[in-house]
Amino acid sequence: MTQKLWQIEEFPFHPERLNHYETLFTIGNGYLATRGSFEEAYKGGISTTMVHGIFDHAEGALVPELVNAPNWLPINITIDGTPFQLINQNDSTLKPKNGAVVGYRRILMLDKGILRREVLFRAESGSIVRLVFERFASLHDEHLMVQRLEITAVDGNPQIEIKSSIDSDVSNVGIKHWGDIQAEAGSSYTSVSAKTIQSGYGIAMASTLRATSNKANVEFTTRNGQPSANTHFQLQQEDSIEFLKLTSVYTSRDGDNPLQSAVAKLGEAASATYESLVTPHINEWATYWKTSDVQIEGDEGSQLAVRFTQYHILIAAPRHDDDVSIGAKTLSGTGYKGHVFWDTELFILPPLSLGQPKLARNLLMYRYHRLAGARNKAKANGYEGAMYPWESTDTGEETTPSWGDPQPDGSRIRIWTGDSEQHISTDIAYGILQYWRYSGDNNFLQQYGAEIVLDTAVFWGSRVEWKNERYELSQQIGPDEYHENIDNSVFTNRMTVWHLEQALALLEWLKTNAPADAERLTTQLDLTPKRLDHWRDVIAKMYIPFDEDKQIHVQFPGFFDLEYIPVPHYEPRTMSVQAILGHHRSIQTQVIKQADVVMMTALLGDELASKDVLMNNWNTYYPRTDHGSSLSPAIHAWVAARLGLDDLAYYLFEHAAEIDLKDNKGNVKDGIHGAASGGLWQALVFGFCGLHITPDGNVAVAPRLPKHWKQVSFTIYFKGKEQEFTITNTP
Amino acid sequence: MTQKLWQIEEFPFHPERLNHYETLFTIGNGYLATRGSFEEAYKGGISTTMVHGIFDHAEGALVPELVNAPNWLPINITIDGTPFQLINQNDSTLKPKNGAVVGYRRILMLDKGILRREVLFRAESGSIVRLVFERFASLHDEHLMVQRLEITAVDGNPQIEIKSSIDSDVSNVGIKHWGDIQAEAGSSYTSVSAKTIQSGYGIAMASTLRATSNKANVEFTTRNGQPSANTHFQLQQEDSIEFLKLTSVYTSRDGDNPLQSAVAKLGEAASATYESLVTPHINEWATYWKTSDVQIEGDEGSQLAVRFTQYHILIAAPRHDDDVSIGAKTLSGTGYKGHVFWDTELFILPPLSLGQPKLARNLLMYRYHRLAGARNKAKANGYEGAMYPWESTDTGEETTPSWGDPQPDGSRIRIWTGDSEQHISTDIAYGILQYWRYSGDNNFLQQYGAEIVLDTAVFWGSRVEWKNERYELSQQIGPDEYHENIDNSVFTNRMTVWHLEQALALLEWLKTNAPADAERLTTQLDLTPKRLDHWRDVIAKMYIPFDEDKQIHVQFPGFFDLEYIPVPHYEPRTMSVQAILGHHRSIQTQVIKQADVVMMTALLGDELASKDVLMNNWNTYYPRTDHGSSLSPAIHAWVAARLGLDDLAYYLFEHAAEIDLKDNKGNVKDGIHGAASGGLWQALVFGFCGLHITPDGNVAVAPRLPKHWKQVSFTIYFKGKEQEFTITNTP
Repeated sequence: MTQKLWQIEEFPFHPERLNHYETLFTIGNGYLATRGSFEEAYKGGISTTMVHGIFDHAEGALVPELVNAPNWLPINITIDGTPFQLINQNDSTLKPKNGAVVGYRRILMLDKGILRREVLFRAESGSIVRLVFERFASLHDEHLMVQRLEITAVDGNPQIEIKSSIDSDVSNVGIKHWGDIQAEAGSSYTSVSAKTIQSGYGIAMASTLRATSNKANVEFTTRNGQPSANTHFQLQQEDSIEFLKLTSVYTSRDGDNPLQSAVAKLGEAASATYESLVTPHINEWATYWKTSDVQIEGDEGSQLAVRFTQYHILIAAPRHDDDVSIGAKTLSGTGYKGHVFWDTELFILPPLSLGQPKLARNLLMYRYHRLAGARNKAKANGYEGAMYPWESTDTGEETTPSWGDPQPDGSRIRIWTGDSEQHISTDIAYGILQYWRYSGDNNFLQQYGAEIVLDTAVFWGSRVEWKNERYELSQQIGPDEYHENIDNSVFTNRMTVWHLEQALALLEWLKTNAPADAERLTTQLDLTPKRLDHWRDVIAKMYIPFDEDKQIHVQFPGFFDLEYIPVPHYEPRTMSVQAILGHHRSIQTQVIKQADVVMMTALLGDELASKDVLMNNWNTYYPRTDHGSSLSPAIHAWVAARLGLDDLAYYLFEHAAEIDLKDNKGNVKDGIHGAASGGLWQALVFGFCGLHITPDGNVAVAPRLPKHWKQVSFTIYFKGKEQEFTITNTP
Repeated sequence: MTQKLWQIEEFPFHPERLNHYETLFTIGNGYLATRGSFEEAYKGGISTTMVHGIFDHAEGALVPELVNAPNWLPINITIDGTPFQLINQNDSTLKPKNGAVVGYRRILMLDKGILRREVLFRAESGSIVRLVFERFASLHDEHLMVQRLEITAVDGNPQIEIKSSIDSDVSNVGIKHWGDIQAEAGSSYTSVSAKTIQSGYGIAMASTLRATSNKANVEFTTRNGQPSANTHFQLQQEDSIEFLKLTSVYTSRDGDNPLQSAVAKLGEAASATYESLVTPHINEWATYWKTSDVQIEGDEGSQLAVRFTQYHILIAAPRHDDDVSIGAKTLSGTGYKGHVFWDTELFILPPLSLGQPKLARNLLMYRYHRLAGARNKAKANGYEGAMYPWESTDTGEETTPSWGDPQPDGSRIRIWTGDSEQHISTDIAYGILQYWRYSGDNNFLQQYGAEIVLDTAVFWGSRVEWKNERYELSQQIGPDEYHENIDNSVFTNRMTVWHLEQALALLEWLKTNAPADAERLTTQLDLTPKRLDHWRDVIAKMYIPFDEDKQIHVQFPGFFDLEYIPVPHYEPRTMSVQAILGHHRSIQTQVIKQADVVMMTALLGDELASKDVLMNNWNTYYPRTDHGSSLSPAIHAWVAARLGLDDLAYYLFEHAAEIDLKDNKGNVKDGIHGAASGGLWQALVFGFCGLHITPDGNVAVAPRLPKHWKQVSFTIYFKGKEQEFTITNTP
């Protein structure tokens, strides 16, 4: 039972949930991730393996995308001539020759990072076999993918054939990225190598299949140009046989000769057993869970959801690579094309900054390595400093598409986020400073982080506009993306002030603690006294839209002139209010995708305003928010918890917890909602537990747990040391 | 959250689960039950209202069946001319003219017996309305069915039309039972009356619809021969309107003029409000839950499942009628045609005997009133006493069909249970004595129960066969229905001994405590000394198949000569091993549907054999059992718990808990598994908690809770007094 709180289960087979479960059952190790597609494939399945950093811009595509790598999963089995395949019991075209699936269970072990599938299959001959598949992407050796297959003759003495291969005929939902495909069979393995057509990244996979006993011989051959490992044998009733399929994966990002590396890696594993491979993998997982798990007593659904979401962050976070980052849909699907958004720094990063600081640092280094792209963007737009792209890939250039996919009527909607959602630069600065404050990683700050924080401050200093005797910002998009190209977004204006304050304070800190770095950065970034005075002036004179009568922040001037829509009246809606009213109408209303002012409250807390104003803000914006973004519910849960709105906080937390597990937005097929996953942890740790750094520099909790919870416990790193918290609810 | 452990929820609409949820969302009050079908209907829906006791034998049908009554649910709504209907989002034939369902949630409140549905619907015109439906079958006034409808104009100012009616054009999955259908519209109601064609039962329903404000006028008219209540009105944006639909239901079993009664009942409720009707209904539910709830701390899934199953027993149990009983599928579907099996006395009855003794007594009185039928059956078969039918309806005659429905190849399988599953008479005796021991209801025993126990003992005395210098029983079917017409079923033989022992002891008890009844029954049932001596002889010389070497009970001689099938190797099967191997092969194997010996252990406990033998029995029969019956997992959980097999007990308990909620047998569309529901409670209370009557006549627990459970508490009646138990698990 306790084990169940570490498991996602499918029983029996749910073909109607095929793509949803493919996403949930993704495995990975921070180097790559592979969706929970079947070894033998299934009609309508979306099988992908995403390797970090391999982007390609296909001819005719609007933007580059993370490339679906060759598929290392295929294992095709026939039983007495009947091909093993899953069956949709509602498919009336099925005949006895298709065999019958008479048993099925699939389990993702979150604690161990292993996906297990058990199937009972009856062939046309009447023979019944039990097939057990396990797979994992080794966390101990990130280039090694492991599959185990156990076949038992439950009834009859079946003749069995197995063909194992790597499928290089893959695409991103129809778009081809691979050229120069070379597939070969060696004496003990098959291999595939290929290059992305536009970007020229090389990939190589080598794969072997071996029986773990001498009951079957495996031959490696090429038939019709397709190399594969093949074996056939007879099983006596009650007999079992076990196979190990190992696949090594390298790209040109790992070295000059990925194929050589892949073949060498297989050679290293020549005498490995499943046990010898899985044991260090499981051990490694255990060390991660030590500071990534949060134990909740008294709420099994929440417990499982928190582990599930942390699992998906952990399998997406690069371990040994500081030049890649986590896209909005992690590595678990093709949604948002693998691009990196603010989702990473403000949503996904915090559980890593506190639980896995080394991994958090990798993600931040990705941004450091892309300062050039950010400076290019600033320059191209006529600004100074570093202006990060809204969507980022390998190059660091802006890769937000300018137009959406065609609508049913053939029209396209202009996407403005790449132009106007400029708060991304501040979001990155926020992530850096939060990481630094919890980790105490001065080295990172001095060498890398400070440069980002300061040069993005330089950008804002150049970006602000002096108008009406105050500083303003025009043409912005805040977190509420329903309202585009607005002037004086309270979120952006206020966070810019915060950013400049932080930049000034950081420079002071550097001058005291790392004077050489302070000097270096002052020179390099041209942080003249005049510039710093300008920042101070902006801080003092930035226009922060505020309604003195109502004592509320105003999302942007004119917001309340729009049509009012009472969002709570739209319950129990199964889609956003935007989708219900349609794009064209909803943008002319006060319906909010996610509340800018609530997001600002999450980030700044009491620093933003008095408790009264925060509550006024909540009462104003919450009833206007439709949570059209998956990022929204968790942040709102967090703020509701801090405002003491316990029931509402829990309601929103549950909503966030179910986004992927229940697919309550209907789009999990495109990948895990990475930001919602990280948001859930923040709602729990920052919201319900109230974790914070005290004025005297310690870390403490200020709990406000849901009433029915009994206890919450977790361990984080604070300034390099593990710190454990146990909060018991006193009803 | 705590509320969630009292709720079954559907969100969003799951058309692929339509019939499953119709069953789960059944409401009822022990007089009738109505499946969770929609007011506006849905293609493929199976809408039924089953009223206790109304059986009919259609021309050409094999057996009589419980009749689907006229449907009191229909409320048809159009919004600006668009008929409100649910939409299957995957249905590609849908056009904008069909409108769009943009929100949906359905909740069954188990604690209150109310089904609530909220829908957000956008008409073709663009108007959006929120519809809230509630319905309940009043527990306070069992002839009254209540529906509430609230419509809110969320967007636009829609023109709305409503038509409310009673649909008498109903059938049992195509088989028509109603004749003489009269449908009329009065000035303030519509009514329907009809008679079952063969059995001549009358039914009448009268229905009214009223707006709870003066915003809409309701007219009662007949169009095309269909009486209905109609209204139309316009709603201004943000405005709401509420309707109350009341339907009264009477049958000729309630009195001579059901129509008059139905109309009078509506008159009584002329000034009732929803509040005035729902309040006493909820209060009544609360009193039932006091002694029907079991609180489990530390296992939310089990908690919900136990409440869900108890709910379904409570809505099926007749409150004011001792001439009807609960069928195998309760009143929630057409499965098993509403017939009453052993499921009632050995599975469904115990939670009522201990929690709701008045309801238990009603169920047992049903059997008392059918003694004539049981005596007829005995006589027809050449035996004495009372031989209860395997399947029972209103008449008390045997109504088991002799043949199953045609197989795909056109053949039919002979059904032998009506001939050979004779243990039903002992099962009823068991239920009576268990009820008596816990309730202390001597009056029932003396007046009614004893006659059944003794006259069924008379039957067994005449049924046993003297062969091979011992008593034997040929041509039996035990709980394991895979093995038919066997000689010397250990279950039947051993339970016959138990039955005769109980009969003798009961007669002694009567002689001491109720000598007049003892004398009356001795005369009436011809309980001569000779007959009692014969019983003693049977007890002494009955053949109980037992393997002395292996120290196990033998299910029947020859069982171990059948082909052995290692059932555990068939995991994770999604169907029975019988279904996997096929009927013809599986009956020649040792695969067991549910273990006779385990069932016997549940019923007799340590009285059956030493702990060692019980464990040997378990180790022998458990690996041969495929739980092809939904009755099996709970009983096995119970016995496993008593044997200290904690993990296995919990595994089996979970299996039992999921039968209806997860539809893991795929047949919940036919109705709730009543026996599995009662079995779950027994696994919990008798198994995990070890509730039992001590030798000194008290009631006590002997807990063996699953390791991860924190606490279990429940209240039962023992000898007329409430007795509360709280068991805290000490890990």
